[in-house]
Amino acid sequence: MKKLINDPADVVADALKGMEAAHADLLRVSHEDRVIFRKDAPRQGKVGLVSGGGSGHEPLHGGFVGLGMLDAACAGEVFTSPVPDQIMAATRGVDGGAGVLHIVKNYTGDVMNFEMAAEMAAAESGTEVRAVVIDDDVAVQDSLYTAGRRGVGLTVLLEKIVGAAAEAGQSLDEVESLAKRVNEQGRSMGLALTSCTVPAAGKPTFDLPDDEVEIGVGIHGEPGRSREPMAPASELAARLVEPVLEDLPGDGPVIAFVNGMGGTPLIELYIVYREVARILEGAGVTIARSLVGNYITSLEMAGCSVTLLRADEAMLGLWDAPVHTPGLRWGR
Amino acid sequence: MKKLINDPADVVADALKGMEAAHADLLRVSHEDRVIFRKDAPRQGKVGLVSGGGSGHEPLHGGFVGLGMLDAACAGEVFTSPVPDQIMAATRGVDGGAGVLHIVKNYTGDVMNFEMAAEMAAAESGTEVRAVVIDDDVAVQDSLYTAGRRGVGLTVLLEKIVGAAAEAGQSLDEVESLAKRVNEQGRSMGLALTSCTVPAAGKPTFDLPDDEVEIGVGIHGEPGRSREPMAPASELAARLVEPVLEDLPGDGPVIAFVNGMGGTPLIELYIVYREVARILEGAGVTIARSLVGNYITSLEMAGCSVTLLRADEAMLGLWDAPVHTPGLRWGR
Repeated sequence: MKKLINDPADVVADALKGMEAAHADLLRVSHEDRVIFRKDAPRQGKVGLVSGGGSGHEPLHGGFVGLGMLDAACAGEVFTSPVPDQIMAATRGVDGGAGVLHIVKNYTGDVMNFEMAAEMAAAESGTEVRAVVIDDDVAVQDSLYTAGRRGVGLTVLLEKIVGAAAEAGQSLDEVESLAKRVNEQGRSMGLALTSCTVPAAGKPTFDLPDDEVEIGVGIHGEPGRSREPMAPASELAARLVEPVLEDLPGDGPVIAFVNGMGGTPLIELYIVYREVARILEGAGVTIARSLVGNYITSLEMAGCSVTLLRADEAMLGLWDAPVHTPGLRWGR
Repeated sequence: MKKLINDPADVVADALKGMEAAHADLLRVSHEDRVIFRKDAPRQGKVGLVSGGGSGHEPLHGGFVGLGMLDAACAGEVFTSPVPDQIMAATRGVDGGAGVLHIVKNYTGDVMNFEMAAEMAAAESGTEVRAVVIDDDVAVQDSLYTAGRRGVGLTVLLEKIVGAAAEAGQSLDEVESLAKRVNEQGRSMGLALTSCTVPAAGKPTFDLPDDEVEIGVGIHGEPGRSREPMAPASELAARLVEPVLEDLPGDGPVIAFVNGMGGTPLIELYIVYREVARILEGAGVTIARSLVGNYITSLEMAGCSVTLLRADEAMLGLWDAPVHTPGLRWGR
């Protein structure tokens, strides 16, 4: 295993120090709690948005802290849920009196620890905490880490859209309701060409032959729907888009998101995007907005995922609103 | 070889179609010439900026076309110089009457073909074309593709800064002089943990044992200064920063850029950035601005590079100016 790290035990702590050094204009980091805060948190009167999860998916979530997106992100160990104390510290630190929304990917440990922290925060300070649990991955029901569907790529779109709503002064009720609507209207599926290696484990999470692809892989390398022979991008894109479309509610335009898993170069992601756009055109689906790049990764895994979100005018307006974070930045 | 591509012969053409589909608000693509144009090129009275080179380094260069950066980028085959006709078409297409600057990385084929295109453009339409040849890589003198030093990471910073100057209405003389000053004041060095595989070749460009690192690698996998045993990030960062600092002219603050080669996850790049920041602090060098991420890549190579640019106040102001491209975006 060759990685640009020091001690495998220090990966998360070292990376947080790097993020703080690189983005001191936007962020501050509580190293004790391993929470990345928006520099000006808490903002009085604004709903506080807290997300988090295992590390190894960068820029998610810490890279999405800033104006128009998250107020705080809790960094767990690599592929390991953050603990309730961390989430509690984040919740406390973003409470501006208008309540706090927890944005949680559907993994058993994450859901449990965010719930526990919400109860603690309510008991300690009366903070009103709501939660949205994201479960957009159509690949499998139940898996190694999850009861029900996993939470994957939609998280990026949801954090952007809901972040803009909170920034615009929407109430906790409104922000929560919007978050649930985004989750209902988005679906994702991914594939892997290679495994990834968790630093502390030191060996690949799974084995995948040189001529096979894992269709429906999870962001921690969890098994997907099937192993299939390697195929051209046009066929692989269809293997992702078709099940996503089948399960996607409603009609109308979509935000189309082609995400890299970390080890796949951008030139390939654009090739996949082109195939996704062709398939959607053939299916009569209009792409209103798009995003192509590495936004929710699985360490150095090679592969990609496709997320589609049926976005109404309100969501598109929130998507276009200014955002200023290390990982997504536009509009100011 | 597993890649998210269709026919290896179509990689560049397919990726350009994907870029066009994803960024139709910013770009238009001449598929015949394989040139990515800023949507509103040519802009009358503005110096036109043209760059380009082999593909496989995305988002460089096509991802840096747009407001405040390039007016056009020529996409060669993977790791292969664009041909004079492409560069000629790009030059013609951005000529707004104020002259054109070619931004060229120092590789023999690139330099030759940009020169030839400049002569053709002058002969055909009297367009005044100047050029800056970037040679920031301190690792080696002369190599497989280059006479003199190679052009690497500084290209990203130069295209941003010079792009802002052209956007602000600076003359061809001013823009050319600024570009040369940026090139004189910046230095880079990279390392590789793995090779990359050119799609048409189908096998890795070089072999690197599981416990070694190539120090001073080029962005096409050209050999560097030495092969060394794998080491912690703190040591590897020093192996890059020290030679860069030794060769860096002047004093004063720097823009510090930690670039990923494509296959290294962001969490590791932040760990490297932290080490770079520590070393610079120890050397008494102030970091005025920073950039961390995959901006000039080598397909799926794992590794990173460090670029330092001694930036005066004018350069910092231009760095902060608005930019709106697929790969870099801020300020509006």
